[in-house]
This record gives sequence, structure tokens and C-alpha cells, in this order.
Amino acid sequence: MTDYSMPELIARKRDGGELNADEVAWIVTGYTTGKIPDYQMSAFLMAVVCRGMSEPELAAWTEAMLHSGEVLELSAMTKAKVDKHSTGGVGDKVSIPLAPLVASCGVAVPMMSGRGLGHTGGTLDKLESIPGFRTDISPERFVAQLEEVGVVLAGQSETLVPADRAIYALRDATATVPSIPLIVSSIMSKKLAEDLDALVLDVKVGSGAFMKTKEDAETLARMMVAIGARHGTTVVAHLTDMSQPLGREVGNANEIRESLEVLRGEGPEDLVAVVLLLAEEMLMLGGVAPTRDAARNRLEVALSAGEGLETFRRVIAEQGGNPDVVDDPALLPSPEHLHELLAPRSGFVAECDALTVGRAAVRLGAGRARKDDAIDPAVGITIHAKRGEPVTAGRPLATVGWNDREQLDACLELLAGAWEIADEPRPERPLVLGEVR
Amino acid sequence: MTDYSMPELIARKRDGGELNADEVAWIVTGYTTGKIPDYQMSAFLMAVVCRGMSEPELAAWTEAMLHSGEVLELSAMTKAKVDKHSTGGVGDKVSIPLAPLVASCGVAVPMMSGRGLGHTGGTLDKLESIPGFRTDISPERFVAQLEEVGVVLAGQSETLVPADRAIYALRDATATVPSIPLIVSSIMSKKLAEDLDALVLDVKVGSGAFMKTKEDAETLARMMVAIGARHGTTVVAHLTDMSQPLGREVGNANEIRESLEVLRGEGPEDLVAVVLLLAEEMLMLGGVAPTRDAARNRLEVALSAGEGLETFRRVIAEQGGNPDVVDDPALLPSPEHLHELLAPRSGFVAECDALTVGRAAVRLGAGRARKDDAIDPAVGITIHAKRGEPVTAGRPLATVGWNDREQLDACLELLAGAWEIADEPRPERPLVLGEVR
Repeated sequence: MTDYSMPELIARKRDGGELNADEVAWIVTGYTTGKIPDYQMSAFLMAVVCRGMSEPELAAWTEAMLHSGEVLELSAMTKAKVDKHSTGGVGDKVSIPLAPLVASCGVAVPMMSGRGLGHTGGTLDKLESIPGFRTDISPERFVAQLEEVGVVLAGQSETLVPADRAIYALRDATATVPSIPLIVSSIMSKKLAEDLDALVLDVKVGSGAFMKTKEDAETLARMMVAIGARHGTTVVAHLTDMSQPLGREVGNANEIRESLEVLRGEGPEDLVAVVLLLAEEMLMLGGVAPTRDAARNRLEVALSAGEGLETFRRVIAEQGGNPDVVDDPALLPSPEHLHELLAPRSGFVAECDALTVGRAAVRLGAGRARKDDAIDPAVGITIHAKRGEPVTAGRPLATVGWNDREQLDACLELLAGAWEIADEPRPERPLVLGEVR
Repeated sequence: MTDYSMPELIARKRDGGELNADEVAWIVTGYTTGKIPDYQMSAFLMAVVCRGMSEPELAAWTEAMLHSGEVLELSAMTKAKVDKHSTGGVGDKVSIPLAPLVASCGVAVPMMSGRGLGHTGGTLDKLESIPGFRTDISPERFVAQLEEVGVVLAGQSETLVPADRAIYALRDATATVPSIPLIVSSIMSKKLAEDLDALVLDVKVGSGAFMKTKEDAETLARMMVAIGARHGTTVVAHLTDMSQPLGREVGNANEIRESLEVLRGEGPEDLVAVVLLLAEEMLMLGGVAPTRDAARNRLEVALSAGEGLETFRRVIAEQGGNPDVVDDPALLPSPEHLHELLAPRSGFVAECDALTVGRAAVRLGAGRARKDDAIDPAVGITIHAKRGEPVTAGRPLATVGWNDREQLDACLELLAGAWEIADEPRPERPLVLGEVR
């Protein structure tokens, strides 16, 4: 590989110029192998935050990250491999019911997820609230379980995309996280390393999401679709609302309980709607349903026959967890105390702000402010009044399950501010905001 | 001092926000003391390159740098202390005749200069071509010589503004040099550490300068004047042309020879004009001349009586150099060979590009491409045809003094491209472009 001058490449990006694929690969490889020091990389990343990346640059950057380590080799699988990724939100437990449900319909789901940070929860943290559940699955076990059960719910393997771990840690310390191309490359390099046939994206929009506007969400979605296409992987993105929490549960064991409700056909309307929207897409992309209607029929059969629930039970058992939680959610960790947050007045919920609820959940101990914070799997918030619903003064807006008085107080300081109550119901806002394919 | 979160401060600057004086001081102090790592500082610096700094931020940044180490204490001096700084150019040896000349008229000149990098030369390198001349002067010797001789031509003391050395080294490695506020703070913190009464700036404009346009030069000059005013130091900036080399000599010993010519009243017109313009300003600011005319008269007396030359002789002697070079410039290092670059056609010089001549001089060995490159004090370029002058095909445009055939070849590859020759003389361009006070 040609040798370049890092200051010259930084200067070009700083001045709004474009790097070619060789230069981009040299930077990613050089940083991952320790040849380029942190201080040059962080200056380059800040230049990217300020100046952006062209689509060819982003494609080259993503490919270089993807090839910084091992990639899964799933070509022996007979089933189509389709995964789902969400850009993250509050109460967003969609992956947990979705993956087993889709797998029970015959599409392989090789899902690698992350942990929660800041106001958004993480799929791995939620799954680990199931007693015994392991998410550190070796590549060999991963492939074997995918063959056998059709779905794996694992953490990112250490050997896959090491460049992403290194670059992400640096971005976190240098305020270079909020850059659409850097977010796209981080997500896509990890998902493409799963050797997928197709990927469905749930791009969250609203206060509780990274993307606050539909325009930004569409930009992100379009880049993801384009990078997938260049790699030969079909990517379909749905934009969904994250201005209020999804479903009624926020917290780790709380969200497993609600996921089990979905798989029993009893989940809350908005959560079920998103799960089915994405599941239909995955069934179509996986070639097991020719149309959205056929996919919906197949999914309704799976739900009423408990096929998704059965597949989830097998995943839990395979991954070391106690499968009895599926029938008896009381086996999940539960808080010692409950506190009811009461409505200060009667009326209709005009807002139930996702960001505020998410931050309150972090203070409660359900999430992490910093990467190495411990979380309490038992604590959480159950929301009784969501947007458009009537409330009566003195009746509960939410129930907070808590273990530590200080954490409860810190949570409550924020939580009440999440609700805005109006005299009349406001016009409904759509849950599904658009799609990019 | 309050403790801040560096990622939060970086994020604010990244998003175009403003930091208060405490936060700015915390960053500069934290970096200088090693509490803030390079990778966070370089991300912050790139954010400054992209988003700029407000005047209060820049003032706080400059003060924090200034107070990162010792400052000179010259309050016992009876004379006014006035220094000059140039933003750097090709053939810009102005400081060398200017400082002794002004000092000979009764203004103290505590001048600390830098080395050359890239296409611009450095005052220290030029002075060190005088056999024996030392520029590493201790603060005690500095004060004593200033009292005795009225002028010191020294390097930056290690104990003054350590923040600037640390930050500059990082900027050099991370492509964060070209930022007007970072340049202003670097210059002003060092100059204010000299405990000056006033400062005269020569802001160079054109291909051979950092500022390519008059607008950028004015912005830089206005910031310098404002930062000086906030500190209580009068700053006057003159904008002068750097689209062609200043004077006729480029190279280290070459420029000492030409400086001696100026002090003998024999220098080339453009160089003498800039020296006198700045010297007049320094005499007025130093209170030894009430008007520009009075200053000019005083300077003409000093030149014709050889007072500046005599002061320079004393400086050389004080600083360990051979003072006989003043009378016998042949004692300066000289090249083994001369090469004449001939005019390819007859006509009038339309351009003699400063940047190209400066780059050619670096290749010849007269300057540094990298900080630790060695330079050859003896080599240089003597320019025979400057803008507006007639040339005859086959007659020399320049004489190159060289020691190494490869370096000569590399120099010549560029040098001829510096000249554009036209049939008719082009309209004259002004040497002095404006002033900011």
C-alpha cells in the first residue's frame, strides 16, 4: 500500500476536499494497526464532522472498517440471512420479539447488538436481565446456533470490525460521535460483517432518537441504502416515531416482559405495529413471503400459534438462560419498591417526551451515563398514559420500579417533566414516517 | 479552578457555540500540564479551525497561553519597549536591519524570533549564518543586553509561553495550523510575554504569505490589534505585498549581506521602504519622534551616520558572533558554486512569484521542508529581475549559489517557473496595502 502523509490527508478533508479509496483505506488500516496516532485520527474525525464525506469516501471507509478484522462466513446457510438494526430509542425493544418471530417463519437472523449508552437502552442489557442469558457467543457457536435455531441474539464479536471499536472509543472521548457518515460506517461495517443477504433498518426520528428531524433521518437512511447497494446487500429503511417511548415499558427486565407480551399476541399497539412492519419486510426480503399481505398472514399464524415465543424459548435455552421466564415472567428480576407518579391535572396527554423518560431511566439505574456504569436490570418505568390518552388528576401517569432511594429521587426530578397535559386531545401524529429503499 | 468535561467543551465548539474565559483557561492549562490528552486537544483545535473563535474567546485563549510560563519583567527599563513581528514571507529579512536601526534611535527592541519552516525563512536561521552568533539567550542576559545595547535578537526562551510550543507541535502534526485565531494567539502570546509597550506588525499579503488576500490579512490584523488593546498593549499593523520576494536576496547569509546593505543606506528600494515604514511607526510608538516626518528625519540621520550598523555590530559581538562581518561580508559563509538562470526571452517581468522562489530556496537547502531538516547557510538565490523590470533573452534572471548538485537541480526544476515575462510592462502594484490600528 502506498504511504501517505496524514497531515496532508487531514488538511484535504479540513478544506472540504475528497479522499480516494486508497487514502481512506490507508487511514483506517493505519489507525487500527497503531501507525496513525490518536491525535491525528481525532483531528481527522473532527474534520469529517465539520465537512462530511462523499458517498465514495463513505463506501471506502465502511469497506476498510469491515475488512479490519474477521467477517462471518455464512454461505453454507440454506436460509436467507436478514438482520434488523435500529438507530436506537427509548423503550425500543423491537429486536427482542422481532428476531425470534421472523426466525420462526423461516428467515435466518444473525443478530449482533450493542449495549445501552446515554438515554437509549441496549438489546444486550435487556437480554441479560434474563437469568443466565449469555451474549458472548463464539463465531463457531454463532454459526451452529444460527443453523439449528435460526436466530442468534449476540454481542459484537471481538474479532469482527476491530476498527469500529477503536474509532468509536476515540469518537466518544473527542465529541466526534454526531456525524451521519461516521454513524453510517459504524453501523454498516458491523452489519455487513454478518454476511447478510438483506438488512432492515428502523431509523428513529424525534426527541428520543439521535435523528431529531425527518430530513436528517432520511439522509442517514439514504446513505445506508447506498452503502448496502455498493456492497451488494439490499437495505430497506423505515423511519418511525421516537418522540415518545415505544410501548409502555422502559427498563431491562421491564422490556423483556413486554417483548414476551408481543410474542403472546398481547403487546401494546404501537410496539406491535413496528414489530410487524419490520417483520413483514424481513419475510419479503428473505423470500418466504411474496407480498406484504402474505407476510402479514404468515406472521399472524406464527403469533397465534406461539411460534415466535417457542423460538425465543429455544434461543434463551441455547444461550444459557432460564427458558422458564417465557411462561413465568415473574422469574425475571423485579424491583423491591414501586412508586406511582400521579397526574397533576386531568386532560389529555399532549406529549410524553422520549428523551426525558430515557434520561430519567438512566438516573433510576436502568441505563448508563458512562460506558462503565453498572446497571440494575430490575428497575424501570411503566407508562400508563401515552400521547392522546385521557388522564385524571391524582391517577398514575407511570409506575416506577426502584431499588435505591437516591436513584428514585433523581429519576423523579426529571420524570414528571416528560408529560404535557392539555385540555383537549391534540391531533394524532403518525407512528410510521416514511421509508427509503 | 472548576473542573469541566473536555468532550462537552469540544462539542460546544464543534456546534459553533462559545466558551467562557474560565473554560478556555481550563483547556490551555489542562493541555500544558498534561491533564488533557493530545487526542482531545487536536479535536478541539480542528473544531476551532472549522468554527473560529469569538474575540472574547481569543483574548482568553491568548492570556491563558501567555500565563502558561514565565513572562519578561522589563518595567525597570527607562526606554519604551517596542517590537516588530512579521507574519512571514520570502526574502523578508526586515527585522535584521530594522531592530538595530530603531534601537540606535533610542527605542528598546526586545525581539524574540523564530526559525524558518516551509517556503518562509526564519530570522534565527539567518542570524546564525553569522559565524559564532548565538540566539539562545538566557532571560538574565536578555534583560542585561537590552539595557546595554538597546536590542536583543534572540530565540524564544524555553520558559516563555510553553503552551505555544506544545500546541504548535500538535497543530503541525494535525493540519490545524491555518486558523486565524490560532495564529493570532500564537503570535500575540509570545509578543505580550516580552512585556512590550507597543508592537508593530507587518502582515504580509500574497502568494508567498500565509494570507493570500487583503481581506484575510485585515481580519488577522484587526484581531491582533483588538487582543493587544484588551491586554493594554498598542498594536499597529501594516499590510505589505508578498506576491514577489522582498529585496533581491533569498537565503541565510544572502539575507544578512542585504541587511548590511540596508544599514549602509544601500539596500534595494522595496526592502528599504518597508524597513523605514515600520521603523517610523516604532519611533512614534516609542515616543522618540512626534510625527512620521520627524521619525523619517531621525532615521535618515541614523542611516547616514551608520548608527544602525554600529548597533548591529554591538549586537553581534554581544551574542558571540564575529562583528567583522559588518565591514567584511565575505566573512559570511559563501557557496562553492554559482549558477545563472537565464531569461528565455526578452520583455518585462510581469510576475516573480514569491511562493515558487521560496519553495525553490527550500529545495536548494536554504530552508526546511520539515522541522528537523538541516539548512545550508551559504546557499541562496540572488534575484536580478523583479516585477516591472526589463529583461533580455539570455541575460540572468537570478544567480543561484549552491553546494550540492542534486539540491541545485531540484531548485532549478521550480525556479524558472517563478517568472512570467510579458511584452509590455504591467501596471505597478503597490508595496504597502493598508494599515490597521
